[in-house]
Amino acid sequence: MVIDLKQCVEILKENDNFLVLSHEHPDGDTLGSAFALMSALKKLGKKRAFMCSDEMSKDFSYMYEGIENDDIGENPFVVAVDVADTHLLGDLAEKYGDKINLCIDHHMSNAYFAEKLLLENRAAACEIVFEVIKALGVEIDEYIANCLYTGISTDTGCFRYQNTNSKTFRSVADLVEIGVNTKMINKLMFETKTKSFLELELLARKTLEYHFDEKCAIITITQAMYEESGSNEHECYPITALPRQIEGVLVGAVIKEKQSGAYGISVRTEGDIDASEICARLGGGGHAGAAGCESKDDYETTKNKILESIRLSLGS
Amino acid sequence: MVIDLKQCVEILKENDNFLVLSHEHPDGDTLGSAFALMSALKKLGKKRAFMCSDEMSKDFSYMYEGIENDDIGENPFVVAVDVADTHLLGDLAEKYGDKINLCIDHHMSNAYFAEKLLLENRAAACEIVFEVIKALGVEIDEYIANCLYTGISTDTGCFRYQNTNSKTFRSVADLVEIGVNTKMINKLMFETKTKSFLELELLARKTLEYHFDEKCAIITITQAMYEESGSNEHECYPITALPRQIEGVLVGAVIKEKQSGAYGISVRTEGDIDASEICARLGGGGHAGAAGCESKDDYETTKNKILESIRLSLGS
Repeated sequence: MVIDLKQCVEILKENDNFLVLSHEHPDGDTLGSAFALMSALKKLGKKRAFMCSDEMSKDFSYMYEGIENDDIGENPFVVAVDVADTHLLGDLAEKYGDKINLCIDHHMSNAYFAEKLLLENRAAACEIVFEVIKALGVEIDEYIANCLYTGISTDTGCFRYQNTNSKTFRSVADLVEIGVNTKMINKLMFETKTKSFLELELLARKTLEYHFDEKCAIITITQAMYEESGSNEHECYPITALPRQIEGVLVGAVIKEKQSGAYGISVRTEGDIDASEICARLGGGGHAGAAGCESKDDYETTKNKILESIRLSLGS
Repeated sequence: MVIDLKQCVEILKENDNFLVLSHEHPDGDTLGSAFALMSALKKLGKKRAFMCSDEMSKDFSYMYEGIENDDIGENPFVVAVDVADTHLLGDLAEKYGDKINLCIDHHMSNAYFAEKLLLENRAAACEIVFEVIKALGVEIDEYIANCLYTGISTDTGCFRYQNTNSKTFRSVADLVEIGVNTKMINKLMFETKTKSFLELELLARKTLEYHFDEKCAIITITQAMYEESGSNEHECYPITALPRQIEGVLVGAVIKEKQSGAYGISVRTEGDIDASEICARLGGGGHAGAAGCESKDDYETTKNKILESIRLSLGS
């Protein structure tokens, strides 16, 4: 059932024990949403706990460090934030997939899996959580502002992506006025390049290849590259944006070898080309401009499959 | 004489023929300020013309293309925008340096060279010009909004730099609401990497060296690299940010060989290290976090001089 902000606030006020879930491979928006909400619930005297199927990057430690889960008993009210579908809960999907009482999300592709859904087409789930927290009447401190700013800034590529609009800028103006440590967050999220990342980027760049009249660019990142550079999967995210940034490229893809040997594929598109359509053909999904999918085939098959899907969407 | 917004508006209304000047090596803020003001003056029925000592990058053509100078007669009212000192007028300094009737600027290091100065500590001169245009009562259309957004977004590194504050975000929210082609502008300013730039970046990276316990990183860009990559000086700007972005680096410098054989040096700093202090020792200037200077010495001497200045500021 789709609910509005007022109903969402009522439901949160009615309950006392909350389990807050983030999606797998947690990013700034799902974590910012979760920890901002956790803090607001705490301020309301509620018990709350957090779970995520995957480890969180240490870059986000300013959100999660020192946050202890409360004892929430056997039957908590389960809230999923920034989770578009149950399988995105990763290992937690089996236990909680059909027990989500409330989902707060901004993906218009949301699978309506939750008992109650607060869904709005905003740049980040954190924008919606910001509205929820304001409506709850909770005082927003620098910690909450930092969490919300993290989600909004990361999900908009620091306000560069097309999902950024005047509401986004007004939300951020309000948060910055409350007090956001933009210096620390921007440096962590957007400014800092480790030496190992720089090495990884150089190795990955050497794999750059063009297809379909240079309208498509593909980069591959292997486990061997992580070893050679001293880098790791957590660091490869910025490379995801690179192929699409090349002049004239309409579809950029990055094929990332996982430790399991499977491949994760990130697709970014330009103009009318729909990245979620490209990834849906391989069982994935996402937004029009940025999407992802996975493949358990070998490298050559994986590459051929994604290239074929890109060809179809390019009409080449 | 320092004036306020109201006085600035009165002066602009009183005069009829305007010459608007941008600083040399024109960037998004000086051009955005100039062309937004030019458009506003035109809407008020004034005559206006634009001059700049250097060629404008074609990336800014959406601002200047199709804009013709009016006949402004022999004694125009001369306005300099985003110009902190007369020598920044480049070749125009000799003729106009002592004839600036009004300067609209956001550099607190402004040399107070103009007859009247509207100076405010904002992230971009375009933020101040936005206030001026609103106060002039001119309707702000998409063209003006595009110009102003260009200046604000480029001078803040797309809202990442520390000069970005809640006022900045509110100004941008207003502009985006009026209608800014953020898609086109962000792509041109922040997203697009030409193949020649990617080649240049790879060549430049190979020169990366660390000094002072890896607290300082320096990259050199030579004329030979431009030739080898097919790139040029206009494209090297993003590399300027790279050295400082490396984990642990407090001072990042890029030494750029000019066609004349002289060297331009860009310095970016972290924390308390003052980039303008480092550059001032070589006769340059700028902001605390980003500054520049020039050297007519040979490469080795140039590098040694900037390293010595960096050493002094690092206290190494």
